[in-house]
Amino acid sequence: MPNIHVALIHYPVVNKSGDVIASAVTNLDLHDISRAAKTYGVKTFYVVTPLKDQITLANRIIDHWTRGAGARYNPIRCKALELIQIKQTIAEVASHIHHSEHSYPKTVVTCAKKYPSSISFEKMRGLLAGENPFLLAFGTAWGLAEETITAADYILEPVVGNTNYNHLSVRSAAAIILDRLIGTKI
Amino acid sequence: MPNIHVALIHYPVVNKSGDVIASAVTNLDLHDISRAAKTYGVKTFYVVTPLKDQITLANRIIDHWTRGAGARYNPIRCKALELIQIKQTIAEVASHIHHSEHSYPKTVVTCAKKYPSSISFEKMRGLLAGENPFLLAFGTAWGLAEETITAADYILEPVVGNTNYNHLSVRSAAAIILDRLIGTKI
Repeated sequence: MPNIHVALIHYPVVNKSGDVIASAVTNLDLHDISRAAKTYGVKTFYVVTPLKDQITLANRIIDHWTRGAGARYNPIRCKALELIQIKQTIAEVASHIHHSEHSYPKTVVTCAKKYPSSISFEKMRGLLAGENPFLLAFGTAWGLAEETITAADYILEPVVGNTNYNHLSVRSAAAIILDRLIGTKI
Repeated sequence: MPNIHVALIHYPVVNKSGDVIASAVTNLDLHDISRAAKTYGVKTFYVVTPLKDQITLANRIIDHWTRGAGARYNPIRCKALELIQIKQTIAEVASHIHHSEHSYPKTVVTCAKKYPSSISFEKMRGLLAGENPFLLAFGTAWGLAEETITAADYILEPVVGNTNYNHLSVRSAAAIILDRLIGTKI
């Protein structure tokens, strides 16, 4: 099993105009990405936001599905949302992984844009086959802030379909990327 | 480009207990699946529901993003939602495709369960390379009703990750399946 942790970043991300913002937590992001993470054997799904009200909201959603009425209504969904850990910063995520894995993760950022240093899916798939922990980060809103992209160990090449349209939702992109990086080769 | 049309079915589908029901339209299904469809060059994204109030709701969402304030706010999103056609039944979808393509589509259903007759992703990918139209159907709620699955020309094998957890959202499943069937081979 790959040693992968996923993070959904709500700060620092950019808005439509390119300004760095903190985005709001979206209920279905937590559901869809935790279900995909559980399907592909991801160890932890970190939801990263420094905003107190968004931390409260995310905790309420997670509690409902892992301990409240939701857990009784749909125990299978519970298994997915149990993967979620809320952290305030990417640095806190790295420390948390270090604490459990005794090693800091290599960070991999995803982005809709190709960089000269972007690594291909195939190469990244090879790197993930090792035992070292990896943190795969996804940006909400209009994507991760430039400072986070350039600070990462790896920038993953963008998902390209059959057209020049590259505006997948973060939920769809996360699902496709997990399938490409750690899914069974078909 | 593949000649593929996608349908998101709200009836007939099953609920948690296996009863055949008509499910409610989910806003983010329309966004996420239309964006994935646009990315992978899908020709039409059919939203299938016989319920009048759900047709009204779906039309309001589509109008907002293709003609209303949403279209001005996010013209890229508009391009995706323009792919949507609302139909009341799967038979109406087939007729609509026949009208534009002068040929009825072969129907391919997706399902989280494997059937003895399930076709592999690899074989299906080969079939889609031809010129005939195909209709790829996804069920909402707990999946397509048995009658719809057995009536299809092909049943696609389920998406399997690295675990025995197979409870992806329909949004994630649709994204992965489009990538596996018509995405650029990596």
